[in-house]
Amino acid sequence: MIATKGYAAQTKDTELALWNFDRREVGPHDVQFDITYCGVCHSDLHQIRGEWGGEIFPMVPGHEIVGRVVAVGNHVTKFKVGDLAGTGCMVDSCRVCANCQDGLEQYCTNGNTLTYNSLEQDQKTPTYGGYSNTIVVHEDFVLHISEKLDLAAAAPLLCAGITTYSPLKHWKVGKGHKLAVLGLGGLGHMGVKFGVALGAEVTVLSTSPNKEADARKLGAHKFIVTSDPTQLKSATGYFDFILDTVSAEHSYNQYLRLLKTNGVHICVGAPPTPAALMAFSLIIGRKSLAGSSIGGIAETQEMLDFCAEHNIVSDIELININDIHQAYERMLKGDVRYRFVIDMATL
Amino acid sequence: MIATKGYAAQTKDTELALWNFDRREVGPHDVQFDITYCGVCHSDLHQIRGEWGGEIFPMVPGHEIVGRVVAVGNHVTKFKVGDLAGTGCMVDSCRVCANCQDGLEQYCTNGNTLTYNSLEQDQKTPTYGGYSNTIVVHEDFVLHISEKLDLAAAAPLLCAGITTYSPLKHWKVGKGHKLAVLGLGGLGHMGVKFGVALGAEVTVLSTSPNKEADARKLGAHKFIVTSDPTQLKSATGYFDFILDTVSAEHSYNQYLRLLKTNGVHICVGAPPTPAALMAFSLIIGRKSLAGSSIGGIAETQEMLDFCAEHNIVSDIELININDIHQAYERMLKGDVRYRFVIDMATL
Repeated sequence: MIATKGYAAQTKDTELALWNFDRREVGPHDVQFDITYCGVCHSDLHQIRGEWGGEIFPMVPGHEIVGRVVAVGNHVTKFKVGDLAGTGCMVDSCRVCANCQDGLEQYCTNGNTLTYNSLEQDQKTPTYGGYSNTIVVHEDFVLHISEKLDLAAAAPLLCAGITTYSPLKHWKVGKGHKLAVLGLGGLGHMGVKFGVALGAEVTVLSTSPNKEADARKLGAHKFIVTSDPTQLKSATGYFDFILDTVSAEHSYNQYLRLLKTNGVHICVGAPPTPAALMAFSLIIGRKSLAGSSIGGIAETQEMLDFCAEHNIVSDIELININDIHQAYERMLKGDVRYRFVIDMATL
Repeated sequence: MIATKGYAAQTKDTELALWNFDRREVGPHDVQFDITYCGVCHSDLHQIRGEWGGEIFPMVPGHEIVGRVVAVGNHVTKFKVGDLAGTGCMVDSCRVCANCQDGLEQYCTNGNTLTYNSLEQDQKTPTYGGYSNTIVVHEDFVLHISEKLDLAAAAPLLCAGITTYSPLKHWKVGKGHKLAVLGLGGLGHMGVKFGVALGAEVTVLSTSPNKEADARKLGAHKFIVTSDPTQLKSATGYFDFILDTVSAEHSYNQYLRLLKTNGVHICVGAPPTPAALMAFSLIIGRKSLAGSSIGGIAETQEMLDFCAEHNIVSDIELININDIHQAYERMLKGDVRYRFVIDMATL
């Protein structure tokens, strides 16, 4: 076994603290990489606090993981020692269901293995995430990251990046389209960058007027303050797509009005409570309210290659791991532009 | 002006009764046809009772109208005296917006003219519907009906028919697809017929176990009683599409679970109150909740031609016009298999 150091929650009521645990030996198809940086996702906090139910403790969170390969198994063909490597939200899946066969491991119908707070495909061994110094992952779930990118700022691509890239590609958003990005946070700021890179006209819809300068710096062409009814009304029937990154409660009906005929409102943020939806909001104009979850492994690699080509990374604040609780407090207040990333050298 | 006899509501609180009114003279592009049959839609009742707001009285309802042409204007090229003719929910639209140009007059962004309880494009002249003996309509909004079809049973195709045909065509439902039709009423029974004719495997989802025999007679391959949790659970992840014809309150979350990855739940029934929707129901499996409203004029003609080819009509109960109030009472209780049609000779 490989002795590993991480930050873990021992129960849902305790704070993260240093914890020593073992990773499996590097198997024939495994890649071991030492973790340089790990992004901080809101879902880390939900899970260590036991807010989603069914949590597995001790829990080492973190699923925006990047680093450098230190060992590979005998049969590994895709990586060699010294390569940059990344792992996102998944470390395995059943491999045999129709979705896995289609490269949609995120929708594995037999249940995929998440990077932490999950069980390996043996349904017994817990997985531990990226708030740690090293990780062992089957090569099929390890991604290549270009040496051209700022590595710390590339970490959030593994979750915030793919979560916004995948739906834009699935719905073929691009030139000639008017895209609204609802919410300018970790996901939203990536949605803006990808929307712009794909050639769409991008408008940020935000409750905070003070985010306009940032939105424009990120490449957004327009900005609408959603709390201003006049601004909102002026965009009636304007957009082809809305990429909804908001995980706080909000009204879908109000935003569906902003879509053109055949428009699609895509939810990647998941509010904890149900929203009230009028069927008429969809019927008038043949609109769709859709959802999307991260992306498959091949598509995640495609996204990382796209980022290398277009020089896209996340806007981050690099933190020491012992500042993680303070970072969570700031994240809860939306006080981060736009993703915290842990410098794992500080572990 | 053309002296016309109809059944009208004088206010939202009075019952329908005989009313004499005038139709416009037949203009150069108009078709006048004497009405033989008119279908009874639930929306007739909503509107004469003033349940949607903004009603125009006196109101002559009826938008599933068929009959035979008695006069045509000088410039009419598509119809001649003696032809069968039909008109559905619309009698005009702006003709210039992008949707009208695309044959999507039902989504006319400048506001189309509905067959009754609406204003002509002059924004002054009220329209009166098919519970009457004759009607004058611009030829562009008059449909051809095959002599091969039972004319009375063809009337509901103009609303119930196109409302279910259009989304099945838009989402390309056909061979290899598993289609659920939610609710077996006026719309639902047409959804079953079209789904079967298009080659899909069709399952009826209904609260009423006693509708199974009818569902199978209509061509449905499977039947699920939605009030039975075991039956419902057995269909988890089974369907490519759900055609939701229910206008009573119901939970979308429960039905979204029955969809495969990338599945689409299409609302054509519009409950009067908002439904509670969890974003996670859409995110897990990249599902869509969509809506669709009737269909464009060209598509309505396509549907009528499809019906002639496949010998599809509605299952109806023919009534005398003085039995209309009793028919409404039965409709409210769901006691109709599956559409009332008024024999206009009884006017």
